Order: sequence, then C-alpha cells, then structure tokens
Amino acid sequence: MHYPSQLNPDEARKLIRSQAWDKPTAGMANGYIQANLAILPKDLAFEFLLFSQRNPKSCPIIDVTEPGSPVPMLSAPNADIRTDLPKYRVYKNGELAEELSDIKSYWNDDMVAFLIGCSFTFEEALLKNNIPIRHIEENRNVPMYKTNIDCAKVGRFEGPMVVSMRPMTEKEAIRAVQVTSRFPSVHGAPVHIGNPEAIGISDILQPDFGDAVTINDGEVPVFWACGVTPQAVAMHVKPEIMITHAPGHMFITDLKNEELSIL
Amino acid sequence: MHYPSQLNPDEARKLIRSQAWDKPTAGMANGYIQANLAILPKDLAFEFLLFSQRNPKSCPIIDVTEPGSPVPMLSAPNADIRTDLPKYRVYKNGELAEELSDIKSYWNDDMVAFLIGCSFTFEEALLKNNIPIRHIEENRNVPMYKTNIDCAKVGRFEGPMVVSMRPMTEKEAIRAVQVTSRFPSVHGAPVHIGNPEAIGISDILQPDFGDAVTINDGEVPVFWACGVTPQAVAMHVKPEIMITHAPGHMFITDLKNEELSIL
Repeated sequence: MHYPSQLNPDEARKLIRSQAWDKPTAGMANGYIQANLAILPKDLAFEFLLFSQRNPKSCPIIDVTEPGSPVPMLSAPNADIRTDLPKYRVYKNGELAEELSDIKSYWNDDMVAFLIGCSFTFEEALLKNNIPIRHIEENRNVPMYKTNIDCAKVGRFEGPMVVSMRPMTEKEAIRAVQVTSRFPSVHGAPVHIGNPEAIGISDILQPDFGDAVTINDGEVPVFWACGVTPQAVAMHVKPEIMITHAPGHMFITDLKNEELSIL
Repeated sequence: MHYPSQLNPDEARKLIRSQAWDKPTAGMANGYIQANLAILPKDLAFEFLLFSQRNPKSCPIIDVTEPGSPVPMLSAPNADIRTDLPKYRVYKNGELAEELSDIKSYWNDDMVAFLIGCSFTFEEALLKNNIPIRHIEENRNVPMYKTNIDCAKVGRFEGPMVVSMRPMTEKEAIRAVQVTSRFPSVHGAPVHIGNPEAIGISDILQPDFGDAVTINDGEVPVFWACGVTPQAVAMHVKPEIMITHAPGHMFITDLKNEELSIL
C-alpha cells in the first residue's frame, strides 16, 4: 500500500469509504484541496449560500451540491458526500446528536451539501514560502478566537467572525499577505495583523477554540477568517438537522491546491 | 449642477429616481462600480445563485438582496433597486413584455435582485494601464459572441458562455491578463486569447450581439466571459417573470472600482 500522503484523491476516498481509514485526513493525498462539510435542508440553503456570498473570507465556497445529489460535481465528480469522509457529526436543533462514519441513513432528497475551503491549502502555500507555522511546529491545533467583527447578516444567519491566528515576524507577515491573497477561496488575505484587542480578543493566550501557541519576541499575531465561523452561525439557527465533518476529518477533493489560486 | 461624471453615487441615483435622467449610465459617477441587474422569483433564486457560484467568470456577483427587500445592503444601503435604474425590462415567460422607468408596480415580497459585475470596471483598469479599448475608440458597443464553452449546469440553468472581445497587441494582452486578474468580481482574467475558432466563433467580424470592431495587423483578439451569459441562461428557463436593466442603463453602487480588486 502507498503511504496515505501519496494516494490520489480517488484512492484516498475509496480507503475512507471502505471504512479502512477512520482517522483525521491531515497529510492524506498531498497537494489536493481538503474541504469542510456542512449539510443543510434545502429551505435554509439559499440563505446559507447568500451568507457565504456576503462573507467570502469566513465562508469560502469550494462546491455546493444540488438538492438531493450527494455528488460534488465541480470538485470531485466520482465522490459520494455520504460515505467519503472518515467521520461525520449530526446536529439536531443545534445539539450534537451523533458521530458516525457514514450518513446514508440520514440522507434525503431535501439536502444540500456545502464544501467550504479550509486553511490546509494556504498553510501549504505559507510553508512553501518558508513561513513557519507555529501550531504545526508545536503539534497543536491552530488557536481560534471569537472577535468583535460582525459577519454580514442574512436572514437568520448572523454572528461574530471567528479567526485563526499564526504568529510570525513582521517581515514574514508582509509575505503572508501576498501569498494568501492569491487564495481567496480558502479565506484569502489576513483580516488583521497586530493588536488582538483591536478585534475584541482580550487574551491571546486563551483561545476560544483550539490550543494556545508560543508567540516569540519580535513576532506579531496574524489573523485569518476561520471556517468555524459558518458552522457557528448555522448552529445559531438551530436547524432541525445539520451534518458536518468531525473536526480534522475532511473531504478530499480532486482539485489541486494551486488550482484555487487566482494568480 | 455637476457634470454627471462628477456626481457621487447617491446624487446620481437621486437624479435617476426623480426621472430627470433616463439615459445610459456610462460615464456617470466616475470611479464607482456599475452593475447589471437581474430580478428573479425566490423559487429560482437558489438555483441562480448556485449557477453564479459555479460560473464566477460569467456571472460575478456584486450583491444579492434578501427576498422582498429592494435594498442592496452591501453595495448601496441607501438605494432602492425598484427606482434607481434609468430603464428596466420586464420579461414574462422569456418574452420582453415591457420597458419602463420604475418597477414598483411589479415588485413583490417574493423577488430577489442580483447585481452582477460589469466590464466597465475592468475597462477602466485597462485604460489606466494604457491599453486602448477599440469599441470605445470607435464609439460602438463591445462585440459579443456565443462560444462552444458550456457553462457548468445547475438545475434548469444551462447554456453556452457568451464572451466579449477586445483586440490588442500581444504585449498588451499579457498586461491585460495581469490587470484583469486583479478583478475576479468583474469577470477576471480573459477566458481565451487568439484563434476565435478554438472557442467556436466562426467569423470574428459577425458578433452575435453588439458591433464588430476593427482588428489591426499585429493584434490578437482577447476574450472575456460576458455578463450577457447569465441573462441568456435565465431567459432559457422562461421564468414567469424576470426583470433586468435595459442595456447600458445600469445600477450605480457606492463601491469604488478599486475596492473590487483582490490585490
């Protein structure tokens, strides 16, 4: 068998579909875009798609299935969204109801699946540009914070932007703006550089989600809009049913990271 | 009174709303983004928004109103989409039914308005980069062509991409790629440079819409996805009602052209 990193997306998804792989997908099918998943009933899909259109930094859309179709036509036409992620979470009325390895029993003709860009893609681009990523070095989850920046509201969908933070030197921060600006479909350029209090973060060492990381002397915190935002916003609506990936257990697309760059 | 080009967007829209201006909007409120308009019933809005998400080059979205709201919150929160364009076209079951100067009598709680990026924005950027624009020099409409490039289909929305063409030197074409790549919300980079037959255009001097323009020796045709595409695709569905701007009679937003650039 190949190393997981050397599998192509089709092979990786087959392994997952056969339930021979139930672990996080970080490092699988290297170079291919992995995406967050959010499945909602059709009556919420227009509002959610409009929310993503108005909040593209927090909610960058890679692909959306047509109602009832489990196939992401643009990003992985041979895949099945119901079986090809290693672990799903089912939320009912905003509460976690179940964690399971396929969602065939829940799927119906009313469902729309959203694949949302994730930071793996821009982190690869940062690493290629010799910008170190502290939470990878320290083998932790990226630190994430609620901010005082309101998302543009759409109908019932509203709430604060959640950001992820990566510390780096000021020189690296300039390069990071350039590098991530090329990838608007995976959060794009940072939303803030510097003083955390300016965006409502009172203690940088106490993230709301994920783990704290070391910030060295001479480093500034650099903040990007985070894919946790749309999940939090959708949960706030307490939909009768909503299905997401389990953290870290992402959907692997056929698209290469570089295909998402606009320049 | 100011010259129309010197009006700010609010002043320009007031002039239009009072019906003191019923002419095309080219040259009004210089430097501000003008947009195409498409209004559809809510039951088609999700499909159309998804179509635009899958075909961002043909159908770049600037703003979408919430069902029943005539206010484009992101791009012009003081505007009213029912009165602030100089001329509208109402289509019933795919046929032009009426041309009129406001649409209050047609508006209802079921309607969703889409504001779609237009080429005025990237043409300004080309001109600033000393790339001449032939149809402006020759005082004609831009030539537009149906291609053999299929749009990504969504439900009932399908059809070929329509492109606009601007001839220029090969050196200018390279710069044009750079300049327009910065503006993904107004069609972005060209979809084709060179041989028209490669994209199904048999006679470059016979455009399907607009006017032919002179192509000089040493020039290549450069093709961009065109905002006529989503209108044609929506018309194909023959919606019970669909309202658009009359050609050239656009919506003036509060956003500056440069705000749409991603770099």
